[in-house]
Amino acid sequence: MTPDQLKLLLDSVKEGTVPVEQALERLRQLPFQDVGCAQVDHHRELRQGMPEVIFGEGKKDEQIIAIMGAMAENGSNVLVTRIDADKAQRIQRTFFGALYHANARCLTLEQRPAEAKGRGTILVVSAGTSDLPVAAEALVTARFLGNEAEHIYDVGVAGIHRLLARHEELAAASVIIVVAGMEGALPTVVGGLVDKPVIAVPTSIGYGAAFGGIAALLGMLNSCAAGVTVVNIDNGFGAACAASLINRA
Amino acid sequence: MTPDQLKLLLDSVKEGTVPVEQALERLRQLPFQDVGCAQVDHHRELRQGMPEVIFGEGKKDEQIIAIMGAMAENGSNVLVTRIDADKAQRIQRTFFGALYHANARCLTLEQRPAEAKGRGTILVVSAGTSDLPVAAEALVTARFLGNEAEHIYDVGVAGIHRLLARHEELAAASVIIVVAGMEGALPTVVGGLVDKPVIAVPTSIGYGAAFGGIAALLGMLNSCAAGVTVVNIDNGFGAACAASLINRA
Amino acid sequence: MTPDQLKLLLDSVKEGTVPVEQALERLRQLPFQDVGCAQVDHHRELRQGMPEVIFGEGKKDEQIIAIMGAMAENGSNVLVTRIDADKAQRIQRTFFGALYHANARCLTLEQRPAEAKGRGTILVVSAGTSDLPVAAEALVTARFLGNEAEHIYDVGVAGIHRLLARHEELAAASVIIVVAGMEGALPTVVGGLVDKPVIAVPTSIGYGAAFGGIAALLGMLNSCAAGVTVVNIDNGFGAACAASLINRA
Amino acid sequence: MTPDQLKLLLDSVKEGTVPVEQALERLRQLPFQDVGCAQVDHHRELRQGMPEVIFGEGKKDEQIIAIMGAMAENGSNVLVTRIDADKAQRIQRTFFGALYHANARCLTLEQRPAEAKGRGTILVVSAGTSDLPVAAEALVTARFLGNEAEHIYDVGVAGIHRLLARHEELAAASVIIVVAGMEGALPTVVGGLVDKPVIAVPTSIGYGAAFGGIAALLGMLNSCAAGVTVVNIDNGFGAACAASLINRA
Amino acid sequence: MTPDQLKLLLDSVKEGTVPVEQALERLRQLPFQDVGCAQVDHHRELRQGMPEVIFGEGKKDEQIIAIMGAMAENGSNVLVTRIDADKAQRIQRTFFGALYHANARCLTLEQRPAEAKGRGTILVVSAGTSDLPVAAEALVTARFLGNEAEHIYDVGVAGIHRLLARHEELAAASVIIVVAGMEGALPTVVGGLVDKPVIAVPTSIGYGAAFGGIAALLGMLNSCAAGVTVVNIDNGFGAACAASLINRA
Amino acid sequence: MTPDQLKLLLDSVKEGTVPVEQALERLRQLPFQDVGCAQVDHHRELRQGMPEVIFGEGKKDEQIIAIMGAMAENGSNVLVTRIDADKAQRIQRTFFGALYHANARCLTLEQRPAEAKGRGTILVVSAGTSDLPVAAEALVTARFLGNEAEHIYDVGVAGIHRLLARHEELAAASVIIVVAGMEGALPTVVGGLVDKPVIAVPTSIGYGAAFGGIAALLGMLNSCAAGVTVVNIDNGFGAACAASLINRA
Amino acid sequence: MTPDQLKLLLDSVKEGTVPVEQALERLRQLPFQDVGCAQVDHHRELRQGMPEVIFGEGKKDEQIIAIMGAMAENGSNVLVTRIDADKAQRIQRTFFGALYHANARCLTLEQRPAEAKGRGTILVVSAGTSDLPVAAEALVTARFLGNEAEHIYDVGVAGIHRLLARHEELAAASVIIVVAGMEGALPTVVGGLVDKPVIAVPTSIGYGAAFGGIAALLGMLNSCAAGVTVVNIDNGFGAACAASLINRA
Amino acid sequence: MTPDQLKLLLDSVKEGTVPVEQALERLRQLPFQDVGCAQVDHHRELRQGMPEVIFGEGKKDEQIIAIMGAMAENGSNVLVTRIDADKAQRIQRTFFGALYHANARCLTLEQRPAEAKGRGTILVVSAGTSDLPVAAEALVTARFLGNEAEHIYDVGVAGIHRLLARHEELAAASVIIVVAGMEGALPTVVGGLVDKPVIAVPTSIGYGAAFGGIAALLGMLNSCAAGVTVVNIDNGFGAACAASLINRA
Repeated sequence: MTPDQLKLLLDSVKEGTVPVEQALERLRQLPFQDVGCAQVDHHRELRQGMPEVIFGEGKKDEQIIAIMGAMAENGSNVLVTRIDADKAQRIQRTFFGALYHANARCLTLEQRPAEAKGRGTILVVSAGTSDLPVAAEALVTARFLGNEAEHIYDVGVAGIHRLLARHEELAAASVIIVVAGMEGALPTVVGGLVDKPVIAVPTSIGYGAAFGGIAALLGMLNSCAAGVTVVNIDNGFGAACAASLINRA
Repeated sequence: MTPDQLKLLLDSVKEGTVPVEQALERLRQLPFQDVGCAQVDHHRELRQGMPEVIFGEGKKDEQIIAIMGAMAENGSNVLVTRIDADKAQRIQRTFFGALYHANARCLTLEQRPAEAKGRGTILVVSAGTSDLPVAAEALVTARFLGNEAEHIYDVGVAGIHRLLARHEELAAASVIIVVAGMEGALPTVVGGLVDKPVIAVPTSIGYGAAFGGIAALLGMLNSCAAGVTVVNIDNGFGAACAASLINRA
Repeated sequence: MTPDQLKLLLDSVKEGTVPVEQALERLRQLPFQDVGCAQVDHHRELRQGMPEVIFGEGKKDEQIIAIMGAMAENGSNVLVTRIDADKAQRIQRTFFGALYHANARCLTLEQRPAEAKGRGTILVVSAGTSDLPVAAEALVTARFLGNEAEHIYDVGVAGIHRLLARHEELAAASVIIVVAGMEGALPTVVGGLVDKPVIAVPTSIGYGAAFGGIAALLGMLNSCAAGVTVVNIDNGFGAACAASLINRA
Repeated sequence: MTPDQLKLLLDSVKEGTVPVEQALERLRQLPFQDVGCAQVDHHRELRQGMPEVIFGEGKKDEQIIAIMGAMAENGSNVLVTRIDADKAQRIQRTFFGALYHANARCLTLEQRPAEAKGRGTILVVSAGTSDLPVAAEALVTARFLGNEAEHIYDVGVAGIHRLLARHEELAAASVIIVVAGMEGALPTVVGGLVDKPVIAVPTSIGYGAAFGGIAALLGMLNSCAAGVTVVNIDNGFGAACAASLINRA
Repeated sequence: MTPDQLKLLLDSVKEGTVPVEQALERLRQLPFQDVGCAQVDHHRELRQGMPEVIFGEGKKDEQIIAIMGAMAENGSNVLVTRIDADKAQRIQRTFFGALYHANARCLTLEQRPAEAKGRGTILVVSAGTSDLPVAAEALVTARFLGNEAEHIYDVGVAGIHRLLARHEELAAASVIIVVAGMEGALPTVVGGLVDKPVIAVPTSIGYGAAFGGIAALLGMLNSCAAGVTVVNIDNGFGAACAASLINRA
Repeated sequence: MTPDQLKLLLDSVKEGTVPVEQALERLRQLPFQDVGCAQVDHHRELRQGMPEVIFGEGKKDEQIIAIMGAMAENGSNVLVTRIDADKAQRIQRTFFGALYHANARCLTLEQRPAEAKGRGTILVVSAGTSDLPVAAEALVTARFLGNEAEHIYDVGVAGIHRLLARHEELAAASVIIVVAGMEGALPTVVGGLVDKPVIAVPTSIGYGAAFGGIAALLGMLNSCAAGVTVVNIDNGFGAACAASLINRA
Repeated sequence: MTPDQLKLLLDSVKEGTVPVEQALERLRQLPFQDVGCAQVDHHRELRQGMPEVIFGEGKKDEQIIAIMGAMAENGSNVLVTRIDADKAQRIQRTFFGALYHANARCLTLEQRPAEAKGRGTILVVSAGTSDLPVAAEALVTARFLGNEAEHIYDVGVAGIHRLLARHEELAAASVIIVVAGMEGALPTVVGGLVDKPVIAVPTSIGYGAAFGGIAALLGMLNSCAAGVTVVNIDNGFGAACAASLINRA
Repeated sequence: MTPDQLKLLLDSVKEGTVPVEQALERLRQLPFQDVGCAQVDHHRELRQGMPEVIFGEGKKDEQIIAIMGAMAENGSNVLVTRIDADKAQRIQRTFFGALYHANARCLTLEQRPAEAKGRGTILVVSAGTSDLPVAAEALVTARFLGNEAEHIYDVGVAGIHRLLARHEELAAASVIIVVAGMEGALPTVVGGLVDKPVIAVPTSIGYGAAFGGIAALLGMLNSCAAGVTVVNIDNGFGAACAASLINRA
């Protein structure tokens, strides 16, 4: 609820076109809808510039269906993340048009073409073969949010020449998402080569003292390349949201 | 060293205007200068879009002076971060024009006006009075890098109305840096109100189970507001670098 | 065993109505009953104001049945927490009147109506859909202990207006339990809006650097809203016990 | 800002007694005052039932004086916590009536007698001699907020009879704050003896694997006595705020 | 190999009854036997006062059988710990006389009655029903090593009177092993009541911030009862070994 | 308060020689004395077999003097641990006979010769020169509690022959305390050579990933030598208390 | 790409035998091959002295087959690590000559005999039976890389004589890899006996406070035997790579 | 004590030239010397190939002097590490010929020229200016142990071209020690460029989530460049010892 909307409402109250009780009600109930297990937030797109997204992990089939239903009726496109193939298949029985992205573990329902909003390309760079699912989540999300998105893979720092050979693609991007596990050094090297915002995504890939992504997370937070920012472990979705906000015209 | 530069050099070698040995030498020595304790990187501005900055902590007076000297001779503006008042005062005896920013613990030497590069305003929002120094570091850095920058302070989440009252300023920014210690919840609330990139800076403010900023850092990494990215604890400088890259025209 | 009871016993010993050996025995054996794997504590209700509750996790069927049996014979109502549907079903074969609460993973056996003890309403506020089971455990427990209890759900801090719209319900409660995972910021925001005791329950919901609830736990312990207290991760039961003691007339 | 106040304001707008612009302004500016480094929140007492308190650690003399000044002019009583003797003495030169509590490291300025609000006694129980300062902070805060408060000290669990001998005092309290370092077991034992809300405060006392209070904090969070809630390490102030809200009539 | 044995060997060498090469060989090969996957240490009983025990976890059937075989042929009694029912059953097909202790997850093969070595009783005290398996491992081990051993169970500190009622048994023991999870406070309370060595065993029982036994472990290490020593989480076996060495005549 | 004493008291109450009120009072007040900041526990020696000891760290001069005074008047010997030279010197002005042990940072006041209670020798083995203070604390405490105590130093595992050469002394001890920092492997090697109880004391000696003793603590808890028990980091005092209880006749 | 190769290429460009565009292309594309999910690095053997190895964990069958295929076509020998028996069997259907090493969980495809490169023997020493798989991975890798490799097993520090008896084998090695879990003390003891490089491999073997290998890792990092270096938990492969580089003639 | 020496001793005993008692004594006392606070190990050079080195931190002047004296009398060269300028100056009053290395915080006493033992050059590569002291400790140690040693500094991964330009020096080394703080990525990049053993030294340089070197340590342990081994945080000395053993002819 923006100040402009508040002012408009207050004006209406003053002019008597909106009674006080009704104004109170609108202040309270407009922006969301109760679907039994959740308050679906129809105004998030207005307020934050992107639609509410359903985090699938830990939610039951019927909960996801209820929330998707409320959003779909409102005409919104829908993205469900962290959803496995079985659950997705069951939900597709209710929403025939929904598309499952196996690598990314995402389900999308697009009722209208994603509006092209970005002013450039979001480039996703990933380190090893095992980091591909997180990179895929970032790609699906970035495109769902109306961006051009490209992918460079398997360019870990232990063979630095593989990365250096892709310099032109790095230079052409408007934002770069770098996905890496193990020691998480790739964002630093990328950040040192370009003058673009770099968003680092640590992955839980690795073993032993990788500690499920802590090593990569700490490596990225301590990057000696100024200008690198970090999101949560395996959070390809969050990185793509941030990249999308940055890529706005 | 960009592919274009490499191509130019190879062309010159082919045409014979640059001998092979000299080409090798240029490939090796051009971009940095040895000052005894450091390799000053004069090409970082070209490569990364911002000049090399001196991290003052743990460096001796003579080391800072040597690096500043090499940069100053090259005509660059210079920023030294994490430098206390005593050390700054001693260094100002060599560089008369250097300016000390006490709150931010930064020293700047501006030989030419910072070139205005940003397309909008970087807004720094901080939670408590004790978070002011980190916010100040972000402000000084953002301005040094050629951005407009503003500040909203003392708007912690325990009194949420203080933040809501500043909604217009939040909406007017092109990037928002949110600085907070303790539970680090402020970036999430800000991120939920706006459609702008939000960079979260955890501070080491707090006590007991704040663990020197870990609580705030984890809070920010786990933000339920999609699109928030995070930098290292107390790293106002890094946040401003990222914000500056995002704010480019 | 209270001082009053001790005095009474000593008086009886003095008067000779209770022999010394018998007094020793009563001091030793009165308050609990050995059921082979546990010492059932029949006096806890007198001493602590609430009956002993069975923590179901890691206990075998026969152990739960033995303890429930001893409590049921004593006329007590029984609550078993952290018990999955299969185990509950097997136990219901012995205790026909027992009721299973699937969301809360609790089993209750009420032999007499819960005595209404509370002076007001305990309000449970939860952040996301995935936090519902912990909230449910708190609700079942609060009601089992004789309190009125209500629930507000899906009011996470990234959409702060959803919470603000429920201000009246917040203001009407006598104690508020706030259940949240991820960054755990909700108790702080609630605590800043009301003048009621707030008990924060971190949940293990989240991924990556949520570390199974550590991020939320730290966030809540470092809350900048004075007056918030915290219980263990996912401990809806404990929060309800504390709320019940506070809600006593 | 309560719904009642909002309704009153809307009524005034409707009746025309308050112009729209002025209503907007009041919604924005009423509750706090900018003193240069902080936004002093004059409505916290109305909203949260206790005045804003100044956390002294990390604040400069002039910052504390500015905030205290704004609060004092407003007629409020003032409490500054975590302030050492030297800083307190310098501030007392500006506020002659301020009183320093050395054990508790608190400074109070009482312009009117604390209004008696509690319905019973808050009892502070502490484990060892080294835990006294944290207990003292809790006592000073509890009394500042208008409560009766008493203290039992040096009753650690390794000599359990010392605690058992104080059973009557424990039973007479309306809320109990238990302060303990090292293994932090005291709240569990107290919680097992009484039917009152118990707030546990871990202290940073101990050495080696006490890890600055982590051992005590974990011990308290894992208390097997249902109904114990926990605050941050060394946070006597927070415990007293929570106890005060519970102790309200 | 003790100094006495070394002296005897050297004397034999001097007297010529043992050739130098043979002495070298005995020094090298006597004390252990290679069974393909392990070096069975037949002298441990002489050297350390207790036979080598097989840690079953992570060992394959054939490895356990090979080691047991070598020990059995040597006439030793054998104890296998951390072995599940299925694996034990398969191994019993080779060693008919072996006995499986289901609660303790131990397998014993006693070829001769355990020699009674202890001068008193080892008392195992455990806190909750879920701690029983660890207590059982301690009991089986203590008896296997030739000690009298007794058990008191379900005497957690939240109902301190249950423990106080067993004071005579506590006082009669020569060593006390205290097994507890969650906050791990029981050893401190026991240690404060008796003048006997107390060995504390943290268990992995608990949830949330119990962190698989870390809370209990830290609580025990920080015990304010002097004289409590600690073993690894869930290490009932190790506690019984230590208790057995202490209980020697 | 033992069951025998309780029985005697009950008999007296029955016979009328002790009135009920007085019995209650004795049950409550006998065993300790309030000295303003502490409850001095005069019965600990009876109950636990060793006198109360004053932990000096974090206590003020006057607090230590008050507690020492109460103990000295009662005729007890007094041990103060963790007390630096300056504080000790100030306290010696009140207690002329007190002796300061600089290496061990202990102060002792012996009013009567320590009663010889041990049945053998407590041997303290320490790894490096930097571990000497912790070893000294163990030695002073062991002797204060009436034991014979000896010391072997600088026998770290990186030069294993230094330890092997002292085999006879190891074999002659009745209990062995092993003090080591860094990787903390010495107790395992000692435990593998002898059939005596071994108490391991990790020290905070080391750097980097020694983490103030955590590495040594973990090493000792995971010792593959069965029968090793562990105390807190740097806790030479606690190790000596445990050793003393074990060494009792 | 070495300087020599760069010089050769530049010479060719100068002489006109290689056109500029083609040189650019070679600089970019020579060293690796895109197989859809990975960039196979054919030059690693030239650059780093050992072929690229496939880390099998988390890779799908078709991914491993694609990478193996590219490497096999290039004539390379192939090593796949961390691959379970089922997956290996499926892959062997494509590569008939591939050999599965069950203990080591490795798959090797040797198209030509491994070139003997080592100047001495790599000795793998392991502590317990449960550490065998990690030791096996080290052995398979060392031999794959062209080294002589031997194994000593079950020589843990709790029976130090078992290790001392193998002194000649230790002295004869050129590099020693020491594999140990639990307290991880074996590398220190070995390092104290020999004048050879010792590479320590912590294993995740142990329980409770072993924390999946952290205890062993910290023990090894804090080794008091100078000259011990450490690799990641369970990283037998990495240890063998380092040993192989050291063992080069 | 090697097997050869043992055989010789046994032969002498057999021939009667060495009495049994004297043989026992030699087995016990030969290799070290008691200087009151330490057992100086004169045979370490024979056994481990390098002299015992004194770790200065936490040792008193007189302790260092006693140990140095015993070593100097034996004709050994002496190295003291982790010693500050003041302590070094006081010790130089006793040992006139001792030389203090301020950057490295080392003191050396060379009574005879270091014997040249290495077959190649040890190259120390460091990342930032703040890492210089750790690199200096490695350099001083490597040279003290008889190796050629060189240094490349300020070649962090954020400006990867600075490192690539030094490729020839990297290729010419026989062992490379890489010193880096912050994210610790430099060893991985170096390890990917060369076919030489790389020893990584994490430094405690960095702030916030660098956690005193943990971030760098984890980064190095998780290096995706096979063949990198790691030593403790800031342990330049240990790295040089390992490099020296590797560099032996």
